[in-house]
Amino acid sequence: MVLRLSQLFLRTLREDPVDAEVASHKLLVRAGYIRRAAPGIYTWLPLGLSVLRKVEEIIRQEMAAIGAQEVHFPALLPREPYEATNRWTEYGEGLFRLQDRKGADYLLAPTHEEMFTLLVKDLYSSYKDLPLSLYQIQNKYRDEARPRAGLLRGREFIMKDSYSFDVDDAGLDASYAAHRAAYLKIFARLGLEVIPVAATAGAMGGSKSEEFLFPTEIGEDTFVRSASGYAANVEAVTTVVPAEVDYSSAPAAQVLDTPDTPTIETLVAASNQIFPRPDGEAWTAADTLKNVVLAVTLPTGERQIVVIGVPGDRAVDLKRVEANIGAFLPVAGEIGLEAAGEEDLKKHPLIVKGYLGPGMSLDQALLGSEGNAKLLYLVDPRVVSGTTWITGANEAGKHVYGLVAGRDFTWDGVIECTEVRAGDPAPDGSGPLETARGIEMGHIFQLGRKYAEALDLKVLDQNGKQVTVTMGSYGVGVTRAVAALAESNHDAKGLVWPRAVAPADVHVVAVGKGEDIFATAEQLSLDLEAAGLDVIYDDRPKVSPGVKFGDAELVGVPTILAVGRGLVDGVVEIKDRRSGEAENVAVDKAVDYVVNTVRNS
Amino acid sequence: MVLRLSQLFLRTLREDPVDAEVASHKLLVRAGYIRRAAPGIYTWLPLGLSVLRKVEEIIRQEMAAIGAQEVHFPALLPREPYEATNRWTEYGEGLFRLQDRKGADYLLAPTHEEMFTLLVKDLYSSYKDLPLSLYQIQNKYRDEARPRAGLLRGREFIMKDSYSFDVDDAGLDASYAAHRAAYLKIFARLGLEVIPVAATAGAMGGSKSEEFLFPTEIGEDTFVRSASGYAANVEAVTTVVPAEVDYSSAPAAQVLDTPDTPTIETLVAASNQIFPRPDGEAWTAADTLKNVVLAVTLPTGERQIVVIGVPGDRAVDLKRVEANIGAFLPVAGEIGLEAAGEEDLKKHPLIVKGYLGPGMSLDQALLGSEGNAKLLYLVDPRVVSGTTWITGANEAGKHVYGLVAGRDFTWDGVIECTEVRAGDPAPDGSGPLETARGIEMGHIFQLGRKYAEALDLKVLDQNGKQVTVTMGSYGVGVTRAVAALAESNHDAKGLVWPRAVAPADVHVVAVGKGEDIFATAEQLSLDLEAAGLDVIYDDRPKVSPGVKFGDAELVGVPTILAVGRGLVDGVVEIKDRRSGEAENVAVDKAVDYVVNTVRNS
Repeated sequence: MVLRLSQLFLRTLREDPVDAEVASHKLLVRAGYIRRAAPGIYTWLPLGLSVLRKVEEIIRQEMAAIGAQEVHFPALLPREPYEATNRWTEYGEGLFRLQDRKGADYLLAPTHEEMFTLLVKDLYSSYKDLPLSLYQIQNKYRDEARPRAGLLRGREFIMKDSYSFDVDDAGLDASYAAHRAAYLKIFARLGLEVIPVAATAGAMGGSKSEEFLFPTEIGEDTFVRSASGYAANVEAVTTVVPAEVDYSSAPAAQVLDTPDTPTIETLVAASNQIFPRPDGEAWTAADTLKNVVLAVTLPTGERQIVVIGVPGDRAVDLKRVEANIGAFLPVAGEIGLEAAGEEDLKKHPLIVKGYLGPGMSLDQALLGSEGNAKLLYLVDPRVVSGTTWITGANEAGKHVYGLVAGRDFTWDGVIECTEVRAGDPAPDGSGPLETARGIEMGHIFQLGRKYAEALDLKVLDQNGKQVTVTMGSYGVGVTRAVAALAESNHDAKGLVWPRAVAPADVHVVAVGKGEDIFATAEQLSLDLEAAGLDVIYDDRPKVSPGVKFGDAELVGVPTILAVGRGLVDGVVEIKDRRSGEAENVAVDKAVDYVVNTVRNS
Repeated sequence: MVLRLSQLFLRTLREDPVDAEVASHKLLVRAGYIRRAAPGIYTWLPLGLSVLRKVEEIIRQEMAAIGAQEVHFPALLPREPYEATNRWTEYGEGLFRLQDRKGADYLLAPTHEEMFTLLVKDLYSSYKDLPLSLYQIQNKYRDEARPRAGLLRGREFIMKDSYSFDVDDAGLDASYAAHRAAYLKIFARLGLEVIPVAATAGAMGGSKSEEFLFPTEIGEDTFVRSASGYAANVEAVTTVVPAEVDYSSAPAAQVLDTPDTPTIETLVAASNQIFPRPDGEAWTAADTLKNVVLAVTLPTGERQIVVIGVPGDRAVDLKRVEANIGAFLPVAGEIGLEAAGEEDLKKHPLIVKGYLGPGMSLDQALLGSEGNAKLLYLVDPRVVSGTTWITGANEAGKHVYGLVAGRDFTWDGVIECTEVRAGDPAPDGSGPLETARGIEMGHIFQLGRKYAEALDLKVLDQNGKQVTVTMGSYGVGVTRAVAALAESNHDAKGLVWPRAVAPADVHVVAVGKGEDIFATAEQLSLDLEAAGLDVIYDDRPKVSPGVKFGDAELVGVPTILAVGRGLVDGVVEIKDRRSGEAENVAVDKAVDYVVNTVRNS
């Protein structure tokens, strides 16, 4: 294939698009790969489509290699299956909903668990039919609140989504492992660094889940890793829990006047004055129990107050709370979460702002579903039985000292809820954690039987008994992969595609005006094509060398072959886009030289 | 590629789906190619996807051959561009509309003229950039009132749509001709008989338009053709207009009592009694002028009455009226059309039912925008100046005789509006027409400057002057092509795919139980794969020969290779699915035999 720039539908732009903040977005638009059609919705131009197809093809090959079979579902789907799993509601505002001319409800699918489950139920009925893995590469729709960063967070985007069906847990483990390995191969072939991290299942449900994160400063996901290989999304990090403490000889708690100490800082300062620590050390924020009041908006629209008790030196991380609070709420689904406001507090007069505590004794509990305020009370995992705390006494200007967890107060549950800090210990004992940011390129889930149960997907097992199928779900962001590739493969001059996904193998530039220059460049392009390479040929007659080289570097094909002044000496210049290294090569050796470069890279 | 039936996601069905009426729908579902997800919305299973991809690839090759470049637009689009061309409203209920979380209006695109126009406007600015042809293969959405016949009329379906951009009319003619030729090649390669017929542009707008119809009894389009090659959609047929008649010596019209003659039949009978034809012949219905009252619902919702005058022997064809009445209405867009009802007539007391006529003289006109009833009056092309008619006198029980067109009455316009009959003369003089039914497989339009004007797409011409670009739009129904292929390639046993689109080249069946049978079938499958063929191998161990052969014939791969009883004599059976002819071939010659069969067909 020879794409001639005199005819190719391409206009490179000198200026960054005004709405673009990240490099991939700027460069993909400027180099003529994509064009914005609406917020978070993009059109693929010829060069972009070429890269996209190559990414898709690599994914297809690796899916085929693990025996997954390709199908293709509609994007426009009826409400009923999503109603059966409650996701019609749970997805909240993120779902594009519409009605047809008869008033029937439809959605634009954000993911297809329900439909795959129903399809397998429709056609299969025996354990002999399993294991089965099906996939599709297909448009997905999510009405993001803040579509941003070009293809990185779009509202119409392409995903590869697979689903595995197994008769038992061991089968699911094997299907999950096969997909995990395939994903690592896909990203390796794309030349895209990814880190598999433990993740929470979120709205998808299920037990085990891992994300494949592409590490980048512009990522929206925060993750942690230890030098020895532990890695997890912050939502999924588990706290190293201290040992329980024997409190049999702990003194009784006492209430002291602590005027004007509504903050942890003022409380610690006052405490060191009025009630010095028995061992002579200074109290720190870690000795206080901070009770944070949050307002949860349930999927039903109802607003519920939750109090979370954490050591005073730790901030509450709302994303971690959101990922883990589901188990304690009466309704599943997407929730809203924020600090409680004045209006919320007015409805709960027992909450004394700045002096809130769980109560002085188990008999006089304020917080917790059994307490006087009837408020759900969850605590950080560091609040273990026997630990002793300074905390609010539920009266303005008073705190309680020596309040013992498990003796004087209790809680409704333990929740991973505080910010994870660099230096915190990894839960597997592999050392201190460091934090980093990344973008989710893939996500794999052991869904288990959630969808199969909701939609009644059963098969006969070897004993002729009906058993519920266990499922996995596995996604790769295809459009997002193109963006991540651009993000990690560019320099100041433009894009620098890895060969596996480049829109062409070589970019031939005719520099100058001589007829022989154009004739030679044309012939070399045809010869390169005949050798099986994809060629972009800049045959534009009246365009300056500066513009042509600028465009070649912006477009980012790995090898640039320039036919110009050197032709009188019988040479052309062959340049590696990434290293910038150039070499003069005899015209009659040029095709072999390029072919070898392509083969050996 | 070897697809093993022990693993392929395929279940053939013995029974036709209950909602299926046409063969392609029944067989594509029964043979496991597609599965219904919602009314008019289908899922592609592995075999179906394979056929679909092959159809797409043929289309891509022929688009590339005429220099069209592939891009890919979103399906979810903002309202504004469609508002600018008025199609947001004109599309009526056929458009899927929705809102995002911010309340902004979106649509699921039924076709992409606006977006292509805007894209070219965005990137191009000079005549030097043209001609340009762009295309995409993409999901389209239309909320059909009656989705039917499986893939033949769906609500989510795949189309190839191209758009051409030229600086002048000659350029548009050339782009149109190139697409027309490419379409004929595409359908020829698919082995799909199509007839290009003259068509009306409909809601798309523009001047010239042709449809590519696949002739079939189950088609929704009626078209006509002459033995010498004239072909047109009935909406687009033009009437052979009789010559004008000199009326200088025509007698004056006279009103006669014609009691109880509210129908053409009673009128003709009465006329032959009370006012015999001067030349002694009998009056026929063709001598009467029937004035039909229609009610048009405009896109604005307003209801307007239109009267159409036609020879009494012709019925009004509402589809032809609908296709041609646009030019006479105050608002463009999709209209409703029906016979006027009692309610409508009540509002127009000057209309005497059964005795309606244009009026006795030009001074006393009743019909026409200048007439007393102020009603739009359109006539059939056969009503030419000087023709003489028997028609209503606008009093119950009275008709007028000898009313001369152009002398005694006139009209607001001439409209193609009557049914086209077998035997009518072709407008190009090529003889009598025959009528047939077909399905629209493709449609090409010379849009002209409608979209470019609405969206202000201009380029600088050779003289540095801004000129409006002229456009063409060209569609092929890709999913519909798969259905049409199934419709025209099946027999009582199942599908019979043409080689160009078959999901595999050969279907290998292991018949019986012997290990050597399975070993040989396996080896032949691998050898056929190694020879570059796509193979379906029925390796299911405990399935009867009857079921295996039944499935092979239902699935419809062109060549079936059976390894069975003959193996003891060193032969396998190779069968042509279409002709049913079978031959015994020595095992060691089987691969060559199949490869030659594939190559030579």
